[in-house]
Amino acid sequence: MILSALLTSVGINLGLCFLFFTLYSILRKQPGNVTVYGPRLIQAGKSQRTNAFNLDMLLPTAGWVKRALEPTNEEILSNLGLDALVLTRVFVFSIRVFSFASVVGIFILLPVNYMGTEIQEFFDLPNKSLDSFSISNVNDGSNKLWIHFCAIYIFSGVVCYLLYCEHKYISSKRIAHLYSSKPQPQEFTVLVSGVPLVSGNSISETVESFFREYHSSTYLSHVVVHRTDKLKILMNDAEKLYKKLTRAKSGTISRQKSKRDGFLGMFGKQVDVVDHYEKKLEKLEDDMRLKQSLLSGEEIPAAFVSFRTRHGAAIASNIQQGMDPTQWLTETAPEPQDVHWPFFTASFVRRWISNVVVFVAFVALIILYIVPVLLVQSLANLHQLETWFPFLKSILNMKIVSQVITGYLPSLIFQGFLMIVPPVMLLLSSMQGFISHSQIEKSACIKLLVFTVWNSFFANVLSGSALYRVNVFLEPKNIPGVLAAAVPAQASFFISYVVTTGWTGLSSEIFRLVPLLWSFMAKLFFCKEDDKEFEVPSTPFCQEIPRILFFGLLGTTYFFLSPLILPFLLVYFCLGYVIYRNQLLNVYEAKYETGGKFWPIVHSSTIFSLVLMHIIAIGLFGLKKLPLASSLTIPLPILTLLFSIYCQRRFLPNF
Amino acid sequence: MILSALLTSVGINLGLCFLFFTLYSILRKQPGNVTVYGPRLIQAGKSQRTNAFNLDMLLPTAGWVKRALEPTNEEILSNLGLDALVLTRVFVFSIRVFSFASVVGIFILLPVNYMGTEIQEFFDLPNKSLDSFSISNVNDGSNKLWIHFCAIYIFSGVVCYLLYCEHKYISSKRIAHLYSSKPQPQEFTVLVSGVPLVSGNSISETVESFFREYHSSTYLSHVVVHRTDKLKILMNDAEKLYKKLTRAKSGTISRQKSKRDGFLGMFGKQVDVVDHYEKKLEKLEDDMRLKQSLLSGEEIPAAFVSFRTRHGAAIASNIQQGMDPTQWLTETAPEPQDVHWPFFTASFVRRWISNVVVFVAFVALIILYIVPVLLVQSLANLHQLETWFPFLKSILNMKIVSQVITGYLPSLIFQGFLMIVPPVMLLLSSMQGFISHSQIEKSACIKLLVFTVWNSFFANVLSGSALYRVNVFLEPKNIPGVLAAAVPAQASFFISYVVTTGWTGLSSEIFRLVPLLWSFMAKLFFCKEDDKEFEVPSTPFCQEIPRILFFGLLGTTYFFLSPLILPFLLVYFCLGYVIYRNQLLNVYEAKYETGGKFWPIVHSSTIFSLVLMHIIAIGLFGLKKLPLASSLTIPLPILTLLFSIYCQRRFLPNF
Repeated sequence: MILSALLTSVGINLGLCFLFFTLYSILRKQPGNVTVYGPRLIQAGKSQRTNAFNLDMLLPTAGWVKRALEPTNEEILSNLGLDALVLTRVFVFSIRVFSFASVVGIFILLPVNYMGTEIQEFFDLPNKSLDSFSISNVNDGSNKLWIHFCAIYIFSGVVCYLLYCEHKYISSKRIAHLYSSKPQPQEFTVLVSGVPLVSGNSISETVESFFREYHSSTYLSHVVVHRTDKLKILMNDAEKLYKKLTRAKSGTISRQKSKRDGFLGMFGKQVDVVDHYEKKLEKLEDDMRLKQSLLSGEEIPAAFVSFRTRHGAAIASNIQQGMDPTQWLTETAPEPQDVHWPFFTASFVRRWISNVVVFVAFVALIILYIVPVLLVQSLANLHQLETWFPFLKSILNMKIVSQVITGYLPSLIFQGFLMIVPPVMLLLSSMQGFISHSQIEKSACIKLLVFTVWNSFFANVLSGSALYRVNVFLEPKNIPGVLAAAVPAQASFFISYVVTTGWTGLSSEIFRLVPLLWSFMAKLFFCKEDDKEFEVPSTPFCQEIPRILFFGLLGTTYFFLSPLILPFLLVYFCLGYVIYRNQLLNVYEAKYETGGKFWPIVHSSTIFSLVLMHIIAIGLFGLKKLPLASSLTIPLPILTLLFSIYCQRRFLPNF
Repeated sequence: MILSALLTSVGINLGLCFLFFTLYSILRKQPGNVTVYGPRLIQAGKSQRTNAFNLDMLLPTAGWVKRALEPTNEEILSNLGLDALVLTRVFVFSIRVFSFASVVGIFILLPVNYMGTEIQEFFDLPNKSLDSFSISNVNDGSNKLWIHFCAIYIFSGVVCYLLYCEHKYISSKRIAHLYSSKPQPQEFTVLVSGVPLVSGNSISETVESFFREYHSSTYLSHVVVHRTDKLKILMNDAEKLYKKLTRAKSGTISRQKSKRDGFLGMFGKQVDVVDHYEKKLEKLEDDMRLKQSLLSGEEIPAAFVSFRTRHGAAIASNIQQGMDPTQWLTETAPEPQDVHWPFFTASFVRRWISNVVVFVAFVALIILYIVPVLLVQSLANLHQLETWFPFLKSILNMKIVSQVITGYLPSLIFQGFLMIVPPVMLLLSSMQGFISHSQIEKSACIKLLVFTVWNSFFANVLSGSALYRVNVFLEPKNIPGVLAAAVPAQASFFISYVVTTGWTGLSSEIFRLVPLLWSFMAKLFFCKEDDKEFEVPSTPFCQEIPRILFFGLLGTTYFFLSPLILPFLLVYFCLGYVIYRNQLLNVYEAKYETGGKFWPIVHSSTIFSLVLMHIIAIGLFGLKKLPLASSLTIPLPILTLLFSIYCQRRFLPNF
């Protein structure tokens, strides 16, 4: 890739971004789109829906940027919770790291690289290949490589320092958050599972006598879990109905006082909405009473045990309760809305086996993921489509259609497969034996990060079969050499990856195309307008954090290889900072608060990126015939890992 | 090595063993040797010293074997403690495993191996190489290898089953032990270190107010640790003097009522012993008072905090106390006689750094250990000795002397270096930041085991430089192949290793040559006779357990490669069982009770041995051109590791 091509791409993508932002700033002001661009505001009752038209609504403005940047950290913490703060801090941390990296990279490393082989002519700059700006341009054995060597040491030091500060800051915020928040029921409660069956006693009696005996001074009460899958479904229905009813009664949202009682509200006789809902609700109530009486006997060997003090609950959840560590398992209770029920019945062994099975499935998935993708891509060619759908033959034979299909279909399929990865990871994590959604989401976040690093970084760098990549990592001695040869070659690919996927991803994040289209369709076809069941989307931590961290990984590894990537990354992080703040303030709502438990993932990922960079550096200095620099780099990953272990022992117990 | 040579070696070593046992059975009956062969009995007051001579004292008898086998497990547990029971259970476990292995190995695998290539002639048996009995004798691709394959699966299953039973047994014994033992002060006490300095408050006040606030219901009292290194020395002196004094007064042991007060009791004027000791003791007392008053102000940021209940102490030691996990570190207090003081002043960071430094030193030591050994061996040749000690020239030139030196010196040096390894490991562990001797010993035990496996197993198997061995393990993919090629070749070496080093080790263990000589010399030269300060030796768990486990590893890895090793190992374990029971009953005394904490090491080592065997099997079936068997073995190590993880989660929390 030559410089002018890159600049063209940058121009196009910047233009697209601005187009999207402009559209966003107009569309968000339309009252009909408030469920798309401000569901959180509606929920909080902060948004007034005025249908009055004024000219300002059609003019693009940048007020939203200002509003997004206004709230201080304390305001974010108190309004949006610690998890939201952590997400913004990831951006702040990345901006700090890559500001420093950009300065070093652009003003020191880039000129060094450019002057690497000979004194270059400056007038032909646009036609230079991007390689002239990367370390590949420096001669083998050149002493200029010592500048890179120093840069790596300094950069690692700075990143570690910033990481330590950030870890300390978030740790202190977490403690302050725990101190300042009002007493929550879950803090006084412990979830006990694996209650042993004592013949003659019910589970409730067993739990009662156990905790009365061993936690006599702090034990308050307990609730044994009952099997209520069917009841739960009825309750959900009732809840939805109730919501509809209250809205219909208050009349603020619905302007439709009657509806038909048939399929999709389109057939059947006209009935009064309030009447209709009330009748339905009554019927549900009866159903539930019936089910409740049937189910009351079905106890599950798990219980929520409440204590008089938080200290008492903390003790019960931290100490092994019985002689057999597979019984009387205690863990801190999740928030009420955070509970994931399926594993309450499971014994220790079943949860453990689930864990192992999921782990195996996950490893198989990340290694073999590329196989079905390639298979489908190879199947879905023009001829295949013609055999499958013969009636499309005439259309497919048109030149433009065939070009579009051959050009875009493979990439479309690839993107489609990528789209299903986060749900698959969530599904895997949900089968792992966790008892709360937040644990599932955290675990899915880690899985997704590993998946991204493997299938987006290593799959691109180490092109070849999946088996080849696994083989590379089975020979640890060769890793630095293989990576050092392969990683720099992909520099221009990843630069354009940042500019296209990165920037476009941000635009689509703020533009929310799918919800926008959905709301538009709903209005058009179902005449539901505002009456439709709108739900505030949950903050997608487990999808966004791995994506952000992956760009951090790219920046760290390419910092000394190809510093040209750094300014584009810096733009990405700055834009991301604004956009995610905006989204957190207007769109998303945290369904539960983990209290910053996502931060340790950020820490580990940063350390991994640094060590990966060091390994590449060791290999590269070897390839560039500077064995001394190569050997002198070896202490760096060891020091980084020691730093990481220290941080983990210093801060992790608080998370 | 041919079979007849092996049998000769076996005969010689068996003869030596019986010679030692005979000598032992005579020597132990001599009243003068009771401090060597029965110090524990003297301590317990069970041994009557009669000087009356009778003929029975000169006849070898096997009564000691009977007496050693008499006590039941419960008696051992109550008299010698759980750690002693664990040591005997290691032998019981090994005997069970290798009884089964011997039956399978000798009656199934050995004939299969022997018939491997062609139908062998039986009449020439003594001249057959040992290789005819090993798997190397089986043709490549032969279907007979499937018998080995089945044997490996069955053996692994049996070992895992026995291991599970043993783990369960010891775990139950441990719990029963904790239940039945009388309340010990250390169970009510927690050691707090890293007490933060609060200006204006003494450490004692800080500790008091902290525990009064957070553990108000269970807190009882505390003792802040003072710096008393110098006091300790004086106290030790006083204790020794006091012991001497009481013995001198009671007159039961000493028959020497007066001594000279000069150097070594050989010069100076004659004084009364009792008088002399009493005066000395008084002087010491004055000294200590002075020192005590001087030192009382020097508080150290560590304290022993006592609680009203064991439950309270357990809570305090299991829960993070402060917001900063590097302060207010709590751990269960060691037994009073088990405390290791040097790290009480050390901060969390210093203890952590000590840990890291020791780890690095340990890795360097095990990898580079062989270098100085080879260096010294190469230096200490005949010519070198002549240049160093020219006066020895005439002696060294004698043929027999030169032969002995060239034959035995290298092996002597090697043994000498091996002798210093346990103290070095103990030294390393003692610098690691532990606060009790039992933790140090456990850590040294692990270190010694790793050292033994690396430098006795891998160093022999993978002959070549230390760097070559490290390199082998840096290419995990090649490990099975390399091991499969190298391990079977060393079969005869390890068989003779078991017969010589193993059996001789046991004889020397029971014969206690060094203490015997020492006691003899003391009697001869210092005329001290029984008055000499005899000390009951502490049970050398950290030296013996790795040795026993190493023989277990040899047996497991060679089980299918060369089953001929199994009967010799079985003999080793049976002899060891008798001898160590005898030593535990008569000689050693546990200085502190870890409550069976050595068992998890045995578990891990057994699992490691199994996995190593599986890896070799995978490689070997590959080499023998039976790729299907090779692939089908791959699940075995995975299953074994899963079993191990399950066991650890099921039992380890109780240890």
